Amino acid sequence: MKIANLLNLLLAIAVVVLALKVAFFSPSPTTKENRTTVRQETPSTEVLENIFTRTSVRDYQDRPVEKETVEQLLRAAMAAPSAGNKQPWKFVVVQDRETLNAIADNLQSIKMAAKAPLAIVVCGDLTLTFPGDGIDYWIEDTSAATENLLLAAHSLGLGAVWCGIYPLQDRVAFLKELLQLPENIVPLNVVPIGYPAENPTPKDKWKPESIHLNTWGEEL
Amino acid sequence: MKIANLLNLLLAIAVVVLALKVAFFSPSPTTKENRTTVRQETPSTEVLENIFTRTSVRDYQDRPVEKETVEQLLRAAMAAPSAGNKQPWKFVVVQDRETLNAIADNLQSIKMAAKAPLAIVVCGDLTLTFPGDGIDYWIEDTSAATENLLLAAHSLGLGAVWCGIYPLQDRVAFLKELLQLPENIVPLNVVPIGYPAENPTPKDKWKPESIHLNTWGEEL
Repeated sequence: MKIANLLNLLLAIAVVVLALKVAFFSPSPTTKENRTTVRQETPSTEVLENIFTRTSVRDYQDRPVEKETVEQLLRAAMAAPSAGNKQPWKFVVVQDRETLNAIADNLQSIKMAAKAPLAIVVCGDLTLTFPGDGIDYWIEDTSAATENLLLAAHSLGLGAVWCGIYPLQDRVAFLKELLQLPENIVPLNVVPIGYPAENPTPKDKWKPESIHLNTWGEEL
Repeated sequence: MKIANLLNLLLAIAVVVLALKVAFFSPSPTTKENRTTVRQETPSTEVLENIFTRTSVRDYQDRPVEKETVEQLLRAAMAAPSAGNKQPWKFVVVQDRETLNAIADNLQSIKMAAKAPLAIVVCGDLTLTFPGDGIDYWIEDTSAATENLLLAAHSLGLGAVWCGIYPLQDRVAFLKELLQLPENIVPLNVVPIGYPAENPTPKDKWKPESIHLNTWGEEL
């Protein structure tokens, strides 16, 4: 009987250890390793792939874009660099159907706004930019912000397209009146945004002949 | 006998726990699910994180940047959108030490070029841009290309900084002569690039007050 008890005890300990091991410890090491590997390897690949696969999307599903997602897009835009860190940008988020339709009806190149649940108008604030000779830096800064916005949208599964406004003065005048922009605010573009209803193939724009080494005319 | 019963009870409990665990929580599906979730979730996270953590880097290690890496940066730049798909950009890759030093010596705001193994000068090609009223679109297109380049550099572990040239005419004239640029080529900026020798904290530039809803003055 004592031997039987001893055997039972040993057996019970073995099974309890095994049960605890399976219940609490076995899957985690593998999973953790996998997660770490995925996280460490992805950054460069994901970022470059997102840049290479982004393209203009002009047709959208009838589905609203969540407020938190819109905020992510704007955070990305405001993370852009700017000359002298002046951040000379302002953003008008257009969600009102009538305003979106007015844009679509009056600007032929932005007619896709009629189907978009949302458009963001990226503007320059001339009171925040460099004076005199450096005035055009606001165009560069707001353009960098727009590119951040487009890349963020693509990474979040949204489709978007950069529709130029400035420097075309008739377009600038129309939008300034429609959106009641103050004198110092210049609309650079309109970016209609939505969940894609089309899946266009990104253009291959790689042209080695556009690259020069050290001085003009030398190949890389 | 009582001890034997107790041990048998323990054994039974252990076996039940083990059986339940195996039946309902077996490791393989969970692990697979985790992997899938991680892969699906990472793109957006990595892309946004790369945008939010990019910042100007002005000090570099004494270490060359691989030719394949430079090509990745240029591919990223050329993947930018452009008005009418005109791709009005050209790139001068400056690796020559004397040229980099000449830039550092003559342009106070680009003195970090003296330590950089490399700088890319992003230029606009005025023969490729819109004529007349739309002429300034080249600034927007080359700025979007520059932002792609900066984001790609950051994702590849490089540090870089956008140093403005255009619209400051003295800087434009100096670089045009130094790099022997034809009349139609305008340098937008110089981007010194290298493996970082500093780790600056990205600025928090989030300003909800820069966002308006539908028309100017309405809060999001």
